[in-house]
Amino acid sequence: MKHIDVKEIISSTEYVGREVTVCGWVRTSRNSKSVAFVELNDGTSLKNVQVVVEKGDGDYKEPRVGMSLKVVGTAVEGRNNTVEINAVPDGITVLGDCPTDYPLQKKGHTLEFMRGMPHLRSRTNTFNAVWRVRSVLAAAIHRYFQEHNYVYINTPLITGSDCEGAGEMFQVTTNGYTTQFKSEEEYYENDFFGRRAGLSVSGQLEGEMAATAMGKIYTFGPSFRAENSNTPKHLAEFWHVEPEVAFAELDDVIEIAEDMLKYVIGQLLELCPSEIAFFDAHFEKGLKARLEELISHDFGRVTYTDAIELLKKSGEDFVYPVEWGCDLQTEHERYIAEKVFKKAVFVTDYPKEIKSFYMKQNPDGKTVAAVDLLVPGVGEIIGGSEREADYDKLIAAMNERGMNLELYSDYLDLRKYGTVPHGGFGLGFERLIMYTTGMANIRDVILYPRTVGSIR
Amino acid sequence: MKHIDVKEIISSTEYVGREVTVCGWVRTSRNSKSVAFVELNDGTSLKNVQVVVEKGDGDYKEPRVGMSLKVVGTAVEGRNNTVEINAVPDGITVLGDCPTDYPLQKKGHTLEFMRGMPHLRSRTNTFNAVWRVRSVLAAAIHRYFQEHNYVYINTPLITGSDCEGAGEMFQVTTNGYTTQFKSEEEYYENDFFGRRAGLSVSGQLEGEMAATAMGKIYTFGPSFRAENSNTPKHLAEFWHVEPEVAFAELDDVIEIAEDMLKYVIGQLLELCPSEIAFFDAHFEKGLKARLEELISHDFGRVTYTDAIELLKKSGEDFVYPVEWGCDLQTEHERYIAEKVFKKAVFVTDYPKEIKSFYMKQNPDGKTVAAVDLLVPGVGEIIGGSEREADYDKLIAAMNERGMNLELYSDYLDLRKYGTVPHGGFGLGFERLIMYTTGMANIRDVILYPRTVGSIR
Repeated sequence: MKHIDVKEIISSTEYVGREVTVCGWVRTSRNSKSVAFVELNDGTSLKNVQVVVEKGDGDYKEPRVGMSLKVVGTAVEGRNNTVEINAVPDGITVLGDCPTDYPLQKKGHTLEFMRGMPHLRSRTNTFNAVWRVRSVLAAAIHRYFQEHNYVYINTPLITGSDCEGAGEMFQVTTNGYTTQFKSEEEYYENDFFGRRAGLSVSGQLEGEMAATAMGKIYTFGPSFRAENSNTPKHLAEFWHVEPEVAFAELDDVIEIAEDMLKYVIGQLLELCPSEIAFFDAHFEKGLKARLEELISHDFGRVTYTDAIELLKKSGEDFVYPVEWGCDLQTEHERYIAEKVFKKAVFVTDYPKEIKSFYMKQNPDGKTVAAVDLLVPGVGEIIGGSEREADYDKLIAAMNERGMNLELYSDYLDLRKYGTVPHGGFGLGFERLIMYTTGMANIRDVILYPRTVGSIR
Repeated sequence: MKHIDVKEIISSTEYVGREVTVCGWVRTSRNSKSVAFVELNDGTSLKNVQVVVEKGDGDYKEPRVGMSLKVVGTAVEGRNNTVEINAVPDGITVLGDCPTDYPLQKKGHTLEFMRGMPHLRSRTNTFNAVWRVRSVLAAAIHRYFQEHNYVYINTPLITGSDCEGAGEMFQVTTNGYTTQFKSEEEYYENDFFGRRAGLSVSGQLEGEMAATAMGKIYTFGPSFRAENSNTPKHLAEFWHVEPEVAFAELDDVIEIAEDMLKYVIGQLLELCPSEIAFFDAHFEKGLKARLEELISHDFGRVTYTDAIELLKKSGEDFVYPVEWGCDLQTEHERYIAEKVFKKAVFVTDYPKEIKSFYMKQNPDGKTVAAVDLLVPGVGEIIGGSEREADYDKLIAAMNERGMNLELYSDYLDLRKYGTVPHGGFGLGFERLIMYTTGMANIRDVILYPRTVGSIR
């Protein structure tokens, strides 16, 4: 069907005076004696195009909200520098009817109500704006890494290994429920892959394998966590950005994270002004200023040890007590970012006991070269580290944790054959969308959220 | 570690005369009395940088293949317009040793041999080139759709529905093998999602939901098939590009597929000349000419019914007999593309019995508005259709197939509330990489292939 996107029509005067065809769904409709007004939206733009119907003697039947129309008319300049379409009743064709039980008749439905209709909520302004922000952020992430010589790789989703703990892993099977097999061993031997398989919680280990061959890589794909937690911040299925860089130390990882995040948010401000204004108006006052602030200052930097001292001296009444060796809670992270630094801040060199086996061990014997980026309003948004590149030290860390070295022989090979300093970080993509839109529930920034007990 | 990518060093004369630091792995090393030559590669480029070591009185220890080095030296113009690095022994630091059991000592390992070491094969020229082509193609796909107002959406991987047949679906569970539950019902009620869940074989149905809200969308993510087939063309986990467009009929779908494919391959030829030359020399003679040919001609077009006539009249001795109603086999597809049209060709309007329930039913009552794109040398590379937008016709097609309508109530709602003509297609990303590199086995175009019985 030859037609022009609403986005194209309303964003330039190129079509003014010309006959155009637009398609879309009716958002609102007003009818008076000689003229009718239809707000039409085809999804390509947060803004509608207004169709002004000169009814004349034509047979005009007022369209209902939710109907889909094809309109042939003349593009004209309307009020406030907008472009509208003048049409006559004959120029309007109904593509699809919409009965009056259409659930999106009225505005002002709650986000919770709309979670019950994931197949229709995308037709609202809110979700139109969220999905467009999501898309623009994703494209900016790809552009950033591509322009900096990174190779996009796809790490496997179905995996036999486990990066951060089997307790949180989904199993993948073609057996499922069956009484056919006498033992666990028999069950898995006769499964699709001939052994137990699961859904990856992170592409990092395979990312390291690629980075120590291709130099600079990034992944951007789904990760899975079978966490039994029903919070506004957790999903069982989420999208994950994981760059990994050879010949990089902790300082390099920090520099990349800051540069990437500033680029991506800068692109969002430039490419989605209407969407950011919408979220600023309806979801988080001051959002735009907060994002502009973020990208215009150097991020702060503090060691974990100094951060603990700052928290202890703060005089704040934290729910979770602060002591060297404890994990930082969101309340601590937000205090550091919002009250102490008043901007984004990297916290580095965490106690080795609260971080993963693969992180580079610092000379002090107590900390590892880990880094978390904390941002005002949210807390942690990026976590990364330099990786332990020394074969013997890595083995020691794995033995301390009682890990089965045999399962990691490929990973250990990287430290055996031409090992190099390397590091990277992980960014939970949905967390970034929440941060840049002000949406408070992670279920509202992914098309079909997957959480415990819920899979509509 | 401050250093410059090999790709930057060798691709301009910007650094000539300056002191530079490069890092990389030793590909080859030659040693003579006063001078040594080291070919260094950091993965950012198919080509190495040559380090010329003036040994002088310094203590030069020849590096072994696979070792990682940091080299500080002076960039100079070498032979054949290349840039080399002049260094003295003191300028060379060994980052990581490499024992002599390193499996990639010699060139000329078979692809099959290298499949046994997925963590190391990326360090060879072949896989360096494949991953770079993969990355550049992926970025070009994103760029194409972003520049044309499409919204990138992420459809769920874990799903309760099933687009094309439960027999091919993996199950996702936190139960796995257990004797805890007395019945199938109890097993799934107590599973993570409270019901049976699987890995999606296609994002199309959710893509339609997004397209009938956002106008133009595309997905680019993994899909899964638990097919028990061990062929060079099938993976259990593959990446899938699925655009879906509202207000689009079959002709529009065809136009988008041709335009997208030509853009993406054009970008590849422009951005990866060394890689394409490499594949042309080592894997498929004439590859470059074939790709240039493809993008410089209009694709052909023929109906299924006419294609059957052409095949019957061909006089060819096909393994699979040809009769109206049969599925086209690769031998038939290749004959049509290679012998009849001698270029890429769209075959349209297939018998409804061999296509999916969601395809638009043609007025003839026998065929549906489906389309497959056949390319010389491969056969089918894209499959798509206009979707059935009529509520009653869709229900009838589903009933004919004995489908459970209750499971599809969301999908049917799209035909109830403002239905619109719409359509889209699916492109198996690994098939595109095979086609554009000449790699004959799909296991060699994805970092960690997943196939039946194999999950290293």
